[in-house]
Amino acid sequence: MTAQVLPETMRVSLLEGEHRLSLADRPVPVPGPHEVLVRIAAVGVCGSDTHYFEHGRIGPFIVDSPLVLGHEASGTIVAVGSDVDPGRIGSRVSIEPQKPCRECTECKAGRYNLCSNMEFYATPPIDGAFAEFALIDHDFAHDVPDSISDEAAALIEPLSVGIWASQKAGVTAGSRVLIAGAGPIGVIAAQVAREFGATEVHVTDISEERLAFALEHGATHGHVAGEDLSALSVDAFIDASGAAPAIRGGIAAVRPAGRVVLVGLGADGLEIPVNLLQNRELALTGVFRYANTWPIAIALLAAGRVDLDALVTGRFGLDDVEAALTSGRAPGSMKAVVLPGR
Amino acid sequence: MTAQVLPETMRVSLLEGEHRLSLADRPVPVPGPHEVLVRIAAVGVCGSDTHYFEHGRIGPFIVDSPLVLGHEASGTIVAVGSDVDPGRIGSRVSIEPQKPCRECTECKAGRYNLCSNMEFYATPPIDGAFAEFALIDHDFAHDVPDSISDEAAALIEPLSVGIWASQKAGVTAGSRVLIAGAGPIGVIAAQVAREFGATEVHVTDISEERLAFALEHGATHGHVAGEDLSALSVDAFIDASGAAPAIRGGIAAVRPAGRVVLVGLGADGLEIPVNLLQNRELALTGVFRYANTWPIAIALLAAGRVDLDALVTGRFGLDDVEAALTSGRAPGSMKAVVLPGR
Amino acid sequence: MTAQVLPETMRVSLLEGEHRLSLADRPVPVPGPHEVLVRIAAVGVCGSDTHYFEHGRIGPFIVDSPLVLGHEASGTIVAVGSDVDPGRIGSRVSIEPQKPCRECTECKAGRYNLCSNMEFYATPPIDGAFAEFALIDHDFAHDVPDSISDEAAALIEPLSVGIWASQKAGVTAGSRVLIAGAGPIGVIAAQVAREFGATEVHVTDISEERLAFALEHGATHGHVAGEDLSALSVDAFIDASGAAPAIRGGIAAVRPAGRVVLVGLGADGLEIPVNLLQNRELALTGVFRYANTWPIAIALLAAGRVDLDALVTGRFGLDDVEAALTSGRAPGSMKAVVLPGR
Amino acid sequence: MTAQVLPETMRVSLLEGEHRLSLADRPVPVPGPHEVLVRIAAVGVCGSDTHYFEHGRIGPFIVDSPLVLGHEASGTIVAVGSDVDPGRIGSRVSIEPQKPCRECTECKAGRYNLCSNMEFYATPPIDGAFAEFALIDHDFAHDVPDSISDEAAALIEPLSVGIWASQKAGVTAGSRVLIAGAGPIGVIAAQVAREFGATEVHVTDISEERLAFALEHGATHGHVAGEDLSALSVDAFIDASGAAPAIRGGIAAVRPAGRVVLVGLGADGLEIPVNLLQNRELALTGVFRYANTWPIAIALLAAGRVDLDALVTGRFGLDDVEAALTSGRAPGSMKAVVLPGR
Repeated sequence: MTAQVLPETMRVSLLEGEHRLSLADRPVPVPGPHEVLVRIAAVGVCGSDTHYFEHGRIGPFIVDSPLVLGHEASGTIVAVGSDVDPGRIGSRVSIEPQKPCRECTECKAGRYNLCSNMEFYATPPIDGAFAEFALIDHDFAHDVPDSISDEAAALIEPLSVGIWASQKAGVTAGSRVLIAGAGPIGVIAAQVAREFGATEVHVTDISEERLAFALEHGATHGHVAGEDLSALSVDAFIDASGAAPAIRGGIAAVRPAGRVVLVGLGADGLEIPVNLLQNRELALTGVFRYANTWPIAIALLAAGRVDLDALVTGRFGLDDVEAALTSGRAPGSMKAVVLPGR
Repeated sequence: MTAQVLPETMRVSLLEGEHRLSLADRPVPVPGPHEVLVRIAAVGVCGSDTHYFEHGRIGPFIVDSPLVLGHEASGTIVAVGSDVDPGRIGSRVSIEPQKPCRECTECKAGRYNLCSNMEFYATPPIDGAFAEFALIDHDFAHDVPDSISDEAAALIEPLSVGIWASQKAGVTAGSRVLIAGAGPIGVIAAQVAREFGATEVHVTDISEERLAFALEHGATHGHVAGEDLSALSVDAFIDASGAAPAIRGGIAAVRPAGRVVLVGLGADGLEIPVNLLQNRELALTGVFRYANTWPIAIALLAAGRVDLDALVTGRFGLDDVEAALTSGRAPGSMKAVVLPGR
Repeated sequence: MTAQVLPETMRVSLLEGEHRLSLADRPVPVPGPHEVLVRIAAVGVCGSDTHYFEHGRIGPFIVDSPLVLGHEASGTIVAVGSDVDPGRIGSRVSIEPQKPCRECTECKAGRYNLCSNMEFYATPPIDGAFAEFALIDHDFAHDVPDSISDEAAALIEPLSVGIWASQKAGVTAGSRVLIAGAGPIGVIAAQVAREFGATEVHVTDISEERLAFALEHGATHGHVAGEDLSALSVDAFIDASGAAPAIRGGIAAVRPAGRVVLVGLGADGLEIPVNLLQNRELALTGVFRYANTWPIAIALLAAGRVDLDALVTGRFGLDDVEAALTSGRAPGSMKAVVLPGR
Repeated sequence: MTAQVLPETMRVSLLEGEHRLSLADRPVPVPGPHEVLVRIAAVGVCGSDTHYFEHGRIGPFIVDSPLVLGHEASGTIVAVGSDVDPGRIGSRVSIEPQKPCRECTECKAGRYNLCSNMEFYATPPIDGAFAEFALIDHDFAHDVPDSISDEAAALIEPLSVGIWASQKAGVTAGSRVLIAGAGPIGVIAAQVAREFGATEVHVTDISEERLAFALEHGATHGHVAGEDLSALSVDAFIDASGAAPAIRGGIAAVRPAGRVVLVGLGADGLEIPVNLLQNRELALTGVFRYANTWPIAIALLAAGRVDLDALVTGRFGLDDVEAALTSGRAPGSMKAVVLPGR
């Protein structure tokens, strides 16, 4: 390991169970041969972080020992493992927060997001990035140019979700797209769809305020949730709401042979209008993480074609993670960011 | 119109409402410029024919004036329209029972099965082929070699459903496929999957007898319905049962990034395990008719790679259509065929 | 036929052989059942028009009877055939200048551009649009909004070539693309690639002036022809030059598994570095006309995402077609347009 | 490392330069953490082995230090690295003879065959398998059932080339395929194309004897090289001849929108009829190694759907490698195999 002079311990924010967060000191981790150590600059707060905080679990993933949350992270490489070019020390990077096995069928087929041996940040028992430092495999620490801010570099993670959704939705030049939900993922998906070439980007939400924001950031049309959109006949529908009525209404709005992509996590089961799927031969799928999206995200950001900085509506220190996790309820809130170095 | 000497009238079997069938005389139709007139040799009985007979409707399609059923048909061209090569008279053909508009977005994109102006045999108010003669556009009357029997030529229609399902399911060499339902469509789908290269074809059914038949015709493994197949991890699941538990069990049996194709028509809405679709990024779609499948079907049949004749378990005359429509309830029955010339 | 009051004859520009153009009077044609009659507003001049003028042929297509050139056309519908909605009279349209048979394998598969029975404007013996009026099938006369000028509506034809090229090149968000040739097709392809999401669009040409123009219209990088670009490692290379060295140099600039699309018509045979194609598994193909591109083109234009008006550098009347055909040689010339109503 | 009792040294066949082969003793290699040590049972002789023997190089790859040839290998695992399940010792395996880096863009996209850091058997300076033992990453040693012979397990490598070619050629049910060259790769490609669903498999060769063999193993039609096949209008053409006239003739035989796949290594540059590629929008590509083909190959073999054993026409010991390498010239020869334990 080659490294700068580093402290021996670091501060981390620990989730010890439902609604129980604490600040703790932990040894600064040492990179394995293929890893790098990143001094964390910014970490976006995701709905899944909030869900773990409020419920202590997401489906089968249970927080049964203290867990560091946070998986949307950027920072600077401060140490590298024995097999990594020491020249990378000092690089500003965006972290792709997953460690696939690289050996299973899915990994070798290029679908490493579906790796059955995956270690993913902030998914029990793997720690995330609400910490001063974190480790990641060297090729999952992606260099970013100086034109990309620390916060935008952190938000490449949700940007990747949007890219992955547009890829699966087959968005291309001239596409007409419907997106349900104008939260961070919906707004990012709208911007991304536009950059994939969509010329109509319809967004629905229950909040007029969020619709207004979406219309300034990628959306071409806003619709208040509940409106009957079945005449839209869009090429693709991306759900970023997780709401059953929005999903069913969205499916009804898709043209024959169009696509439906579910991003928002809803219930385990859902009543789906399969007659529409069949009679129109719609293709329905979901997104689960992402693969090979960082280079695309960085290219779009560096070219100034998407704007992530505009989404940040709250900044918090490591000692204020609880406020960050609950800030989403406030009116006008879009995206909170934790700045461990603050 | 160039033609052989033809009668002025023909016998047709008319559905006049729920459970009301009659034999009637009608004028032999005259082909339009691009059409051919086919003397019908054989017509397969499909579950949708039986459904119209028993319920007088399928979803929004209501039999409110007398309707000729039957859409799986073969025969011989006996007259052609003004723009059709008269040399085709005498050709043995399999009828692709659809007349798309050729001008809409779907038609011009090659998805003519999704044409919104479609006229489809035996779908109100378009008449089908339980008749001595029927019209079809010349390019939807596909020549068949003499090695293909009249009955097999008729059953190219359900064979096309199986081909379309395998295409959408992405079946290819080495695929592992699960098919729910060992009725005619399931058995055909099994044969087809094998010819698309599948090396494992699992079929489920409630009937041991049907499973045994499937194992002789394409299936490599049979499973009694209800068995937990979630460990199978197949590449694709094709539902030909329309049964909710089979669909949910089938989805659970698909590997990450696998495909689910719904063929069987079930209820309008269905509780779907969307968490599996999302976490495994499964792609779910349906089949609705078929496009460009006849040449493939004829090639497979002519090469002796699928066997349709083995499916025929009952033969009926035009005056016996009711018996044909209800014959599926009998034990050992697989597929009934109406022979109008009988 | 429903129609406005129309003249009985119209002026057309006739190519009677190499370098022999004349103005003639011809009867205004009468639309067939599915056709519309368009009063031509603007017609772009294409390199193929010039080639016919100068050589009297393109490959196997020989001008052996008088031919009306021009296939990039817009105008207003002034009459419709018996099966066409008369409400379309008065509509401003962009003409998709092809009449496929709609019945062959290619047409029914959605690749109607490859129809073997194609009738294409200005390809012997089919007349084109250097005329006051022209016929086209009603669904190949695409309505355009008033925000699109007559000249831009005419240039949707080369825009379609660019769209088709980007589709075949697989251009998507974050793509890095190389385009050889900064003529009209190259510049349009650059704009289109950007709207398909390309974040780097490299253009090469021998003319610094044309490179400068390209850099103002879609290109992000310009390269003087001859520069070694093999280190670029682009995702896709689109040739719009037809020049053998440019093609070979472009192929060498493509990353593994990248794509090569040939637009420019060159010689019949060409020495290709097949070792690169093999070792990198590049996919090479060509574009021949286009299919289903007009809706995309109109969506992009209506959204203000491409600029065709900027390309027009010369305007000519019907009596000045020879000047239009030869204007491409002038310095600063990009695209000439014939205005039959001038 | 867990291991059986193993010798300290092993015999290897060394290529020391053009036409210079010798037998040498080398230490038995020790598996790294992720590797397994395989006692080699059988090794197919490939044209590239013969080329290295006769020319001391293939293109830029020069044998400038002693090299062990042979990359089509099977055997039994006799030792495993520290991170590998020791339970695998004793497993019969087919070796996928490549070691990609798993970290580059190509690897992470599932195209590991195009890895720029690839270490490939018998490609300087990486040793191959004409030896008593060889190392490979554990997940590139694929278990085979006992129904697959050692020789067939070795020939999974060329079978993979055939599978990769059929995948790139888009072969599916009903496809009509043309294959140039009835050597081992051509014959395997014919069998594979049939199992991908091809119903017509045309093979060309200069040798009537080889054509006869092909017709017994997958081909449906044989053509003596030189015959004009331009009327065939096949869906795909796979070149396994490397001969320029065969390639040009094959391209002329492909239908619009069909595919051309080059397998045979020919000259660096080749005169290609680009007018056909353009006017028919053919897609031309090459194959370079393979990715994720072993599971497919094993499934096909285990199901008895391809026959590799029939190809073996010569068996040689390690002390007879020169005879093996030159045996291809003999009449009636198809495929030689080296058996290091003989």
